[in-house]
Amino acid sequence: MIDPKSLLREMFDAALAAAMPDKVIANHLPEPPKGRVIVVGAGKASAAMARAFERAWDGPLEGLVVTRYDHAVPCERIEIVEASHPVPDAAGAETAARILDLAQGLGADDLLVALISGGGSSLLSVPAPGVSLHDKQALNAALLASGASIGEMNCIRKHVSGIKGGRLAAAAFPARCVTLVISDVPGDDPADIASGPTVADATTLDDACALVERYGMTLPESVHAALADPRNETPKPGSEVLTRAETHSIAAPQASLEAAAAVARDAGVTPIILGDAIEGEAREVGTAFAGIAKQVRQHAQPLPAPCVILSGGETTVTIPKGSTGRGGRNVEFLMGLAEALEALPDTYAIACDTDGIDGLDPVAGAIVSPDTLARAAAAGYPVADAMSRFDGHGFFARLGDQVITGPTLTNVNDFRAILVL
Amino acid sequence: MIDPKSLLREMFDAALAAAMPDKVIANHLPEPPKGRVIVVGAGKASAAMARAFERAWDGPLEGLVVTRYDHAVPCERIEIVEASHPVPDAAGAETAARILDLAQGLGADDLLVALISGGGSSLLSVPAPGVSLHDKQALNAALLASGASIGEMNCIRKHVSGIKGGRLAAAAFPARCVTLVISDVPGDDPADIASGPTVADATTLDDACALVERYGMTLPESVHAALADPRNETPKPGSEVLTRAETHSIAAPQASLEAAAAVARDAGVTPIILGDAIEGEAREVGTAFAGIAKQVRQHAQPLPAPCVILSGGETTVTIPKGSTGRGGRNVEFLMGLAEALEALPDTYAIACDTDGIDGLDPVAGAIVSPDTLARAAAAGYPVADAMSRFDGHGFFARLGDQVITGPTLTNVNDFRAILVL
Repeated sequence: MIDPKSLLREMFDAALAAAMPDKVIANHLPEPPKGRVIVVGAGKASAAMARAFERAWDGPLEGLVVTRYDHAVPCERIEIVEASHPVPDAAGAETAARILDLAQGLGADDLLVALISGGGSSLLSVPAPGVSLHDKQALNAALLASGASIGEMNCIRKHVSGIKGGRLAAAAFPARCVTLVISDVPGDDPADIASGPTVADATTLDDACALVERYGMTLPESVHAALADPRNETPKPGSEVLTRAETHSIAAPQASLEAAAAVARDAGVTPIILGDAIEGEAREVGTAFAGIAKQVRQHAQPLPAPCVILSGGETTVTIPKGSTGRGGRNVEFLMGLAEALEALPDTYAIACDTDGIDGLDPVAGAIVSPDTLARAAAAGYPVADAMSRFDGHGFFARLGDQVITGPTLTNVNDFRAILVL
Repeated sequence: MIDPKSLLREMFDAALAAAMPDKVIANHLPEPPKGRVIVVGAGKASAAMARAFERAWDGPLEGLVVTRYDHAVPCERIEIVEASHPVPDAAGAETAARILDLAQGLGADDLLVALISGGGSSLLSVPAPGVSLHDKQALNAALLASGASIGEMNCIRKHVSGIKGGRLAAAAFPARCVTLVISDVPGDDPADIASGPTVADATTLDDACALVERYGMTLPESVHAALADPRNETPKPGSEVLTRAETHSIAAPQASLEAAAAVARDAGVTPIILGDAIEGEAREVGTAFAGIAKQVRQHAQPLPAPCVILSGGETTVTIPKGSTGRGGRNVEFLMGLAEALEALPDTYAIACDTDGIDGLDPVAGAIVSPDTLARAAAAGYPVADAMSRFDGHGFFARLGDQVITGPTLTNVNDFRAILVL
């Protein structure tokens, strides 16, 4: 006999475990070098990665890692500094410069370990020569307002930086550079995570200038000058200074989904993974996915019950001005799903942010069951009301169906499971 | 060697063929009765159903069918009348009254054949006693503005009608009543199609009154009076007057998807049907489904290529005021899909309305290929521009990638196929 809510929670816990540095890093330790070991890193999960690394590493090491404010964990041998995200600040810029110095001091017998996770781009900020931190902040604001995609923004960032786009690994050359990555980007391309400080950059200064023109961006004069200076070209694939650099994913959305799928299989429930990078407006994705659950119920397609429909990725929430509700991508998805499921029998769902924080609230997500709509209506808070206020956390708090983990100090984006028994 | 665009078009053509009355009605003819055969019907596809029926029927018959303006086809023995949809008019009301008269004249040896398709609710309008056509039109406007769901609107409609909610079959009793249905509603419940004139109604006058109160509807006095009159209760499941009534689906979204799946299998492409009733904002569904195609490419999940991801149903398009583009659900879906696919290699898609009219234009839909974005940009009309104008038909017209069938005179909602080779 399956307890659906417990099974959903076990699947989420397995997905989380597969993304926790202390659970996975031991499988990815590099060969010890003859020389020194320097550990650096940047990102929201990178302090937790540093602690896991120093506990698992058998030998001397020293290091310096920058993480977001409130994301530090105590380490014994690696120095942890907190800095600002998503807008870079002086703490981040100073630490990034020190990290670059550490890398530049290494020789051919040494090893640089880079612990990279989402959010590292703004934390690891070393402006190109001639560009002030203030101008870098202005650039960041212009990028966010431009309408450019993440990849396009990163192309420009990499060419106005002294550390992004492979320059950190180039600085460490001829030392070996092993990057361990926790991915939170669609496609898991390490060049996209934290603007790829140890990864070859296939984009060029010309590409960056074309984007600035295409989006009509107004940038500080120093940034235009940097983009016109050929010395700011990034190391390209095949470049000699990157021949000793390699990258390994230690956690990613797909691995977490596979871990959840294994839990389902053990419970006699067939998993189907629809995607590790599903995007779209959260509640509309919920509506669409309800149609898939109904197809299972009505036509035993795409597979017969009992089954679980798994997906990851990062949906979006478009909030009208003046909205006062407390919400997030995952609870928005769940409200859209619940409304469209119309109390479909024996159908349950969980959706949570793997960092433990869906939106701005310290709540990972929630669980939906066939009686969600009826209990909400009986409690005087119908789902339509909560949706009109974008108040997903208020809605599930009222029902007692929130999932609360606390900050997990890792992030492989969202985890969604729809269980049809 | 698969020609992807041709294969997609063949799949759509197979889906259409499975929904065409002249292709499928012969498999659903009732046993000839001892007595008379009267054919009636209402809906956008019902004239085409009438022509198919009279061609396939071997024996005497007479009949009267009401369809939407411009949806008539010439019949030899069944009279076809055109009327207004979605707001009922006098032509529809007069024809519906004549249809009810025909049914009432039948005896136990006679057969009433009802040909029902989407849109029949407003075409088959017989106000309850005391309610004028004008008041019925005011009711319809109030329902559409109320925010009530289709099922809720139909509950009220059925209790202010002399023909909906099983009353047509009840009028024909003790004659046998065989209803042939083409479904365009999620779940394919015949009680929901054209407000189920020959199908038992599980809802009650009390339900209808509760909905009027819940949505705070302002209705004509005569409608309130009708909802208070117990003589307007509908025939319920198990009612004696419905014991000789039966309903058969002759075409439905699922059958069309299965027909397309068979074409794919014959071409060596594995089909997966995600749902026959997928809902949600069209372009957001496109974005989400792009994530599934990417999962096929990157992780061979939910199944390996070559495969085709099939779905049906009716998405929605929310158009901001002042938008001047020419669009529809299917081209909106395709633009959202193409943008999110980012030119994913060897990935193609088709999306079409099976009635041949996506939105208001005489265009069924369009086809997307890996070079769609690049060709559009080269033609000076990037997809982002077309999306900001909700100009899907303009976008695909520019590319020469429209699918044009002309009005098909049937409707099993949308047909979508994403082919990953």
